[in-house]
This record gives sequence, C-alpha cells and structure tokens, in this order.
Amino acid sequence: MSITTPRGFVASGLASGIKASGALDLALLATDDGVAVPTAATFTGNLAAAAPVQISRSHMASNGGRATAVVVSSGNANAATGERGRDDAQHMCDLVARGLDVPVEQVLVCSTGLIGIRLPMAPIEAGIPGLVAARAGSAEAAERAATGILTTDSGRKEVLIENSTFTVAGMAKGAGMLAPNMATMLAFLTTDAAVEPGPLADLLRIAVRDSFNSMTVDGCTSTNDTVILLASGRAGTADPNVVVDTVTEACSTLAGQMAADAEGASKIFQVQVTGARSDGEAHQAARKVAESLLVKCSINGEDPYWGRVASELGSAGVEFDMDRVDIAYGGVEVCRGGVGADHDAAAVATHMAGALIEIHCRLGLADGDAVVMGVELGYGYIDENRTTS
Amino acid sequence: MSITTPRGFVASGLASGIKASGALDLALLATDDGVAVPTAATFTGNLAAAAPVQISRSHMASNGGRATAVVVSSGNANAATGERGRDDAQHMCDLVARGLDVPVEQVLVCSTGLIGIRLPMAPIEAGIPGLVAARAGSAEAAERAATGILTTDSGRKEVLIENSTFTVAGMAKGAGMLAPNMATMLAFLTTDAAVEPGPLADLLRIAVRDSFNSMTVDGCTSTNDTVILLASGRAGTADPNVVVDTVTEACSTLAGQMAADAEGASKIFQVQVTGARSDGEAHQAARKVAESLLVKCSINGEDPYWGRVASELGSAGVEFDMDRVDIAYGGVEVCRGGVGADHDAAAVATHMAGALIEIHCRLGLADGDAVVMGVELGYGYIDENRTTS
Repeated sequence: MSITTPRGFVASGLASGIKASGALDLALLATDDGVAVPTAATFTGNLAAAAPVQISRSHMASNGGRATAVVVSSGNANAATGERGRDDAQHMCDLVARGLDVPVEQVLVCSTGLIGIRLPMAPIEAGIPGLVAARAGSAEAAERAATGILTTDSGRKEVLIENSTFTVAGMAKGAGMLAPNMATMLAFLTTDAAVEPGPLADLLRIAVRDSFNSMTVDGCTSTNDTVILLASGRAGTADPNVVVDTVTEACSTLAGQMAADAEGASKIFQVQVTGARSDGEAHQAARKVAESLLVKCSINGEDPYWGRVASELGSAGVEFDMDRVDIAYGGVEVCRGGVGADHDAAAVATHMAGALIEIHCRLGLADGDAVVMGVELGYGYIDENRTTS
Repeated sequence: MSITTPRGFVASGLASGIKASGALDLALLATDDGVAVPTAATFTGNLAAAAPVQISRSHMASNGGRATAVVVSSGNANAATGERGRDDAQHMCDLVARGLDVPVEQVLVCSTGLIGIRLPMAPIEAGIPGLVAARAGSAEAAERAATGILTTDSGRKEVLIENSTFTVAGMAKGAGMLAPNMATMLAFLTTDAAVEPGPLADLLRIAVRDSFNSMTVDGCTSTNDTVILLASGRAGTADPNVVVDTVTEACSTLAGQMAADAEGASKIFQVQVTGARSDGEAHQAARKVAESLLVKCSINGEDPYWGRVASELGSAGVEFDMDRVDIAYGGVEVCRGGVGADHDAAAVATHMAGALIEIHCRLGLADGDAVVMGVELGYGYIDENRTTS
C-alpha cells in the first residue's frame, strides 16, 4: 500500500503545527524527476468552493493537463476565507514550486478542516521547505503523506492495484460519515500507465461517478472535495479499458474504506434501483432513497418500512408507476406490484440486524440501473455534528 | 374556531374503530344543502400518491371544480395498497354520495396514517351512514370533525378569520414534525366568499405556496398531502385580493400550528434569503439550507456554524457569488463578503439558545427573496421515526 509504488512518484508528510495535537498536517505528492505528467482532477460542484479548489482549478486550466506536484494541508479547510484565502492557497503553491523549481501552475493544492477560519500561514511557510526536502519514494514517506491528509479519520485509507503492465495506487481521507472535519473527501491517485491528459480526464470522470459519487452520507456537498490522478507513463501504454476499470476499482476501494470508517457507529445500506427508464434516473431514484431522513432512521431502527422507500421513489422526479414497483430487503420481497407482499418476516428481521442492509427497488419500466450507498441516521451523527467544539 | 362558521357548511366526526384507541377516526365536511360549490384542491406531487389522492384527483377532473363533501379517515393512509386501495377509497366516496344523494364525483376523500396496509373497510362501511347523519353546523360537530382528522397531533389545529364581508375557516393535521403518522399534512378550508372554480384554484395555489410549501421538516414528500378549499358563495362576491390574502393568512396560521406542535421537543429555524436572482432562486436556496442535515444538527447544538450555511447556499443550484454573501444569526452578522466578520458572540449565543432561530442570508445579486421554516435535527426525530411500532 504505497502511493509511490507506481513508478515515477515521491511523497512526504510533516507536522507543521496547524493541528494543535501535533499530528501530521502537511503532505506532498510529486513526480520523482520534477517533470510534469498528465494529470486529471475533479473538484466539488459547490459554488462556495474553498480557496485551494479555486486555485487548483485555475492551475488545471492553464497547465495543459500536466502537473508536477500536489500539496495538501489538514486541520483547516481554507474555505469561506475570501481573497486572503486565495492568496494563502496560491502562496502554498508558490513555496512548493520554488522548492521543486517548477512553474507554479504545475502545483495543485488541497486543504481540509473547519470552514471560515483563515489558514495559519506561519507554520505552513516554515514547514513546506522541509516537506519538499523530505520527499522520497520509500514506503515510509508514502505512509507519512497518507497520514498527513487525515483529519478525524480513524486511520489511513490506501489502495494499491498491480497488474502485469501497470500499477494504480491511491490515498484518501473522509468522507462525512460522522465527524464534521471529515465532511470533505480528498483522494489522490497515481499510476505509471501512459495516458494522455484528455483521455485521463475522461477516465477519472467515469471512475468518480461509479465510486465516490455513488455514496452519500448526508446529501451535503463539501466546499473542498477533490480527486486528483497523476499518470507518470513509466509503464508505457496500456489498454484504455483496463486502465478505466483499474482506476474505478481503486476509487471504489477507497470509497469502501470511507464507509467502513464509520462502521463502528453506523449501519451502511445499499440502495439498488433496477428497471428505471435510464441509468441516470436509476441513480437519481437510488440517491433519493439513500438520502431520505425517514429511510435512514428506519435503517437505524432496523425497521423494514418499505412504504417510505416507495414514497421516496415516487418523489424522486423520475418516471414511476407504483403498480409496477417491487421492493426487497436482503433479497426478500416485501412489496410486489406496489402493494405489500407476504414474506418471511424473520428473514427480513435477521437481515435488518446486520451491518450492511440491502434494499432492491425494481421499477419495472426499462433497463436503467444504479447502486448508491447510504448511511443510517442515529444518535452518533447528531452527537458528532451538533457542535464543532 | 369552527370550520362551519362560514355560512353554508356542516361537519361531523365519529369513532368507527379504525384506531384501536377508540379515538375519532372519520370526519365529514359538506355543504348544508347538498348542493355542490366551487372547490379547489392541491395534492402531493409524489408519484406514489395514495389511493384517496388518486380518487380525489380524478373526481376533481370530472366535477367541473365543484364538490359537495369531503370524507376523511385517520389511522391508515390507504397508500401503497394498489387497485384494492383505489376501490376502497372509491367505496368511501360512494357511501357518502349515497347518504347525501349527490353524484359520486362531488365527493372527495382523504386518508392519513401508516403506508402499505389495506384500509379496514368493515368499520368504515358501518360508520359512514352515522357520520353523514350526524352532520351539523354546530361548533360541537365542527370540533368533532377537526378531531377526527388527527393522528399523533397533540391537539386540534383550527383557524377562523372573519372580516366585514366574508369568513374563512380551516382545520388541519400534521406535519411531519416528529412522529411518522404525522408525516402527512391535510388541511381543509371553507369560505362563504363567492369565487368561481378557476380563480379559486389560482388563489389556493398562491396560498399554499406562501404557507405550507414554505415549511420543511425533513424534505420528505408524503404520499397523502392534500389541501382542499370550498367556497359556498353565501356572502356574495368579495375583492379577490382580499380573499387571497385571507386564505393565505389562514393557511399560514395552520402551518404555524403544525410547527408549534413540535415545539416541546424541537427548535424551529427560519431561513430568510434576500438578494437572490429571483424569488424562485431565493426559495430554492432557503429550502436547501432548511433541509441540510448539518445545519439542522447545528441548530440542535446551538452552534452558529455559518460555514455550513454558506456551503449549502453554494450547492443549492442557484446563482451565487461567495464574495458577496452576508450571513446573520438573529440579526447579528457573522459573515460579511464571504468571510467571517467580527461580531458579538454572546448575543449570538443568546439567540441560538432560543426556540426560534433566525438565519438571514444576503446573496447580494438582485431582489429575489423568500423565507422557509425548518426544524432542528435532534434525538427526538430519531426516537420517533426509527420504528413504526
């Protein structure tokens, strides 16, 4: 498990003092030779995007889809910080660019933490030169980077997938399971497959759609969400379809680790919608169910109240015919043709008592299907989110 | 406070046995002479609409906007009950139409309660003749009707507004504050002002938009929500603008009673958005904030974490420029121009400790404004909604 296993990358992590706890709070990911490589990035759609998102987006617009490094700070989101926040994020890039002797637009920046508080620049300015100097391809350096991006995560989130021709690795933090500081999801991926910037952007879009964007905690869109993929090309060209599948698998693994991070306190549930008019409508309907407060409460209470699921499907804004709807919990059909079905209540109760609840909704209209993962709503979410102090 | 105070109406309520508790569970509202009068109805937009909604909607489509009676049952929603549910709802209308000797399409029907269970027709069939026979213009009869529509409401919700020329009265149940059975909102209004069916439908649309639709509990749209307004015309024609304002005021009063019904367990918060590109965008942004789990948790925790408010505004799908945003809690500005503002923290803390929290968001773009009421998210919501048993 190392973000530096794909050939051509180095990393580092450092405790600069942003976090009062003294934990690692800066991370760097860079190419080992200081040469920019094809890079793709996906940012939050939130129009209140944090300063680092604004700066990284502008760098991606001017660097021809090639970057050399990503610098990450944790403990403070640098969001809702206005012009000064943008200056601070830009300054982080400047310091890294100077250290690596590369153009500043080849450096991307991410931050995660509380919103609305100015970034403490003194420790960051003092820390970045050491962060740059410490960069290495070692497993230890990669581990420090994967640690430096965390906030209230219970541990590192990493993935490594190797095949005969190329390797994909990733590290992540998040996502909004229980703690406010985790509301932001950050993920960084490296590969040594050779993919040009255009196709790389396309494949990252697909991978994110089928992994991170198919999971919802509370329907809130963070100001800082970012996924970045760098491709060194050191392993030469690879079958594009295999690269897409491998990157998607890596993203799905990281998304699963994010879900699992809340497992001690939360039940997770999977909403599968089939028979929708299109995949897009299936996704929209599945997301409506997964984000429903009433459904989330039912999962917490282990109550297979399918009427609420039907009600959410009916208000999801997709084509819908109640008389064709079937709903199953854990494979046991409880609603058939829009009305209650005789079923094995004991089997459903056993399923509801588990950690992963499966809800399958058949709309009976066409071939659209999708899966969205959701999280129960219980006391834990409220305890963690009612105050930031 | 009597739904029968406007001239031309009678009402009744009866305990038929739908509710095991023996509480009143059937209600009737009708014209006193059995003649159909101009009637407007607004139904849930949920495509999983309950059987009574489907039947009432079809009756409204064929009765020329004139109805004689509304029959309501409480304790069972008759939702997700398929063809048999529609037969049951139709049968309720038939029984009332027979009792009143009017065409069946002049009778509307509503039900409220649990989803997915067939309506117990034996007590309903036995009860309706007595319900029809008991109809009267007395305050006591009206009180029984207003009681018969309730589920877990803590008490009757009624309104009466009289002016020099006409009167508007209403009764309601709901709405989704804490208990699952209250998820449905039903409201019935009467007036003796003379308004033709077309204008009556227009004015009800406006009144509902500015009252019930500007309040959100959990973003869930019930399968049974219905608002019905009957106009006897006995008071003669009135200034249409005064009628709109009076009906809107009546609806707002009922909406306020719904909010107040949860007051013991919940803080309510008002999200005012001004300076949006349009009133519609202001409403969309205010609703996004009012429905945000993170904002709702912050209200519960009395934490004025404005960063979450800004984040919701930024992901509301409306025109937005973070650098122009001001946010105030209880009139105290905590964010100016998209960044934190120096403020009197003690004054904000005092406001957050109250029962009604006011959040004002200025977008600084144009003149669009709107207000949406929301409810905190605390243990109470989870306790009441985690199981239906």
